Amino acid sequence: MTTMTNLQHLVNPKVTHAVTIISGGLDSTVLAHLLHRGGAKLTLLSFDYGQRHRTELAYARRTAEALDAEHHVVDLTGLLALLTGSALTDSSVDVPDGHYTDAAMRVTVVPNRNAIMLDVAVARAVSVGADAVVFGAHAGDHPIYPDCRPVFLRAFEQMAVTANEGFAHPRFRVLAPFIDLAKSDIAAIGAQLGVPFADTWSCYKGGAVHCGTCGTCVERREAFEVAGVADPTIYSPAAEVR
Amino acid sequence: MTTMTNLQHLVNPKVTHAVTIISGGLDSTVLAHLLHRGGAKLTLLSFDYGQRHRTELAYARRTAEALDAEHHVVDLTGLLALLTGSALTDSSVDVPDGHYTDAAMRVTVVPNRNAIMLDVAVARAVSVGADAVVFGAHAGDHPIYPDCRPVFLRAFEQMAVTANEGFAHPRFRVLAPFIDLAKSDIAAIGAQLGVPFADTWSCYKGGAVHCGTCGTCVERREAFEVAGVADPTIYSPAAEVR
Repeated sequence: MTTMTNLQHLVNPKVTHAVTIISGGLDSTVLAHLLHRGGAKLTLLSFDYGQRHRTELAYARRTAEALDAEHHVVDLTGLLALLTGSALTDSSVDVPDGHYTDAAMRVTVVPNRNAIMLDVAVARAVSVGADAVVFGAHAGDHPIYPDCRPVFLRAFEQMAVTANEGFAHPRFRVLAPFIDLAKSDIAAIGAQLGVPFADTWSCYKGGAVHCGTCGTCVERREAFEVAGVADPTIYSPAAEVR
Repeated sequence: MTTMTNLQHLVNPKVTHAVTIISGGLDSTVLAHLLHRGGAKLTLLSFDYGQRHRTELAYARRTAEALDAEHHVVDLTGLLALLTGSALTDSSVDVPDGHYTDAAMRVTVVPNRNAIMLDVAVARAVSVGADAVVFGAHAGDHPIYPDCRPVFLRAFEQMAVTANEGFAHPRFRVLAPFIDLAKSDIAAIGAQLGVPFADTWSCYKGGAVHCGTCGTCVERREAFEVAGVADPTIYSPAAEVR
């Protein structure tokens, strides 16, 4: 059983002011709650990059309001014309069903997405003197998304510190406290923090309710199951017959 | 005297398809001509980030047309609200007169600007299978802009390769062929390549003609003078009395 004390060890040393990317999904929402509980001032950034599941942005706003945090939705839809072939942004490519770590999920990769979003977060952090940019990558992301791996995190932090030398906070860091954790660990941490899971959105298909069959829905269901945490998500009835 | 042969050594090994950031200024315009002359396919990206000198974007388009290259102006004005305090984007901060390398020019730093623009270029490069992202940073930028230094270039390349492992071109690189050159060297290279310098824009103030007194104008004038290259730029008459 994870205790509240060692939860705070996930963000150590303590962050004073975090610029945090919040998608509205489970991971980033739990992350925002964790940082808030640890006493950090929060600046939350969400991104509209033309993702078909932009439903998630409304969920991000709910969390920002619940935590009384500054929240900006950054319009990056101007990038859309430059990026072709990802199922998340290209309506001619279908979002695959199946397991989140399947090779088929490669079509959901938006090239260089995390570096772009993190760089915007770094720009904001430098502007306001925040001492950290924090994001919610976790171990389950690693097989498919190279920009969620520890080696990327270290390279990105090095780049960001170098790019802003003399302008960023002297102790500026880029953190991903969940990077070695499974999504079920994050569900458990969220439960401990009292995160209202119904106020999070995972489905890549962007319907009225979670489809229950796309990679992120399958991953979400499994995370709650493995963690032994009640799943308040409403899944599409069609998914129940699987 | 620089020969055409060793000009091509600036981009070695040869690039097949370059995604290149073109501001419309002297450096990036000469860079586009250099890559074109070397036989690279060019994808040119310009950025509208709310800079007061967005006049430069029309100059970027002229070069794209002259080189018959694909050109996209990426709208990043959505970032503007996030970035405060730079003279280039904040109309409440004056663009300083003086020398480009003066400490006063620090107010023209847009936090993390190059990392954001380069990351968008990387995204495009991965989307279209280009083997390089190339930008026009030069040695004169180093004193003021940390995101123009060799240490940044190396850190950025490392990050970009890591972020797109398995998706980017197998020989993907991030290059800044002018990073060790003075701006006067670039003027000399441009003269050798026959670059129409009148079709470039440097002034940060964004008036009808070059002001002649802001840091980039002073730097531009000096570059032509030192290189012994005729300067076709029309400077504001007010600047002549200095």
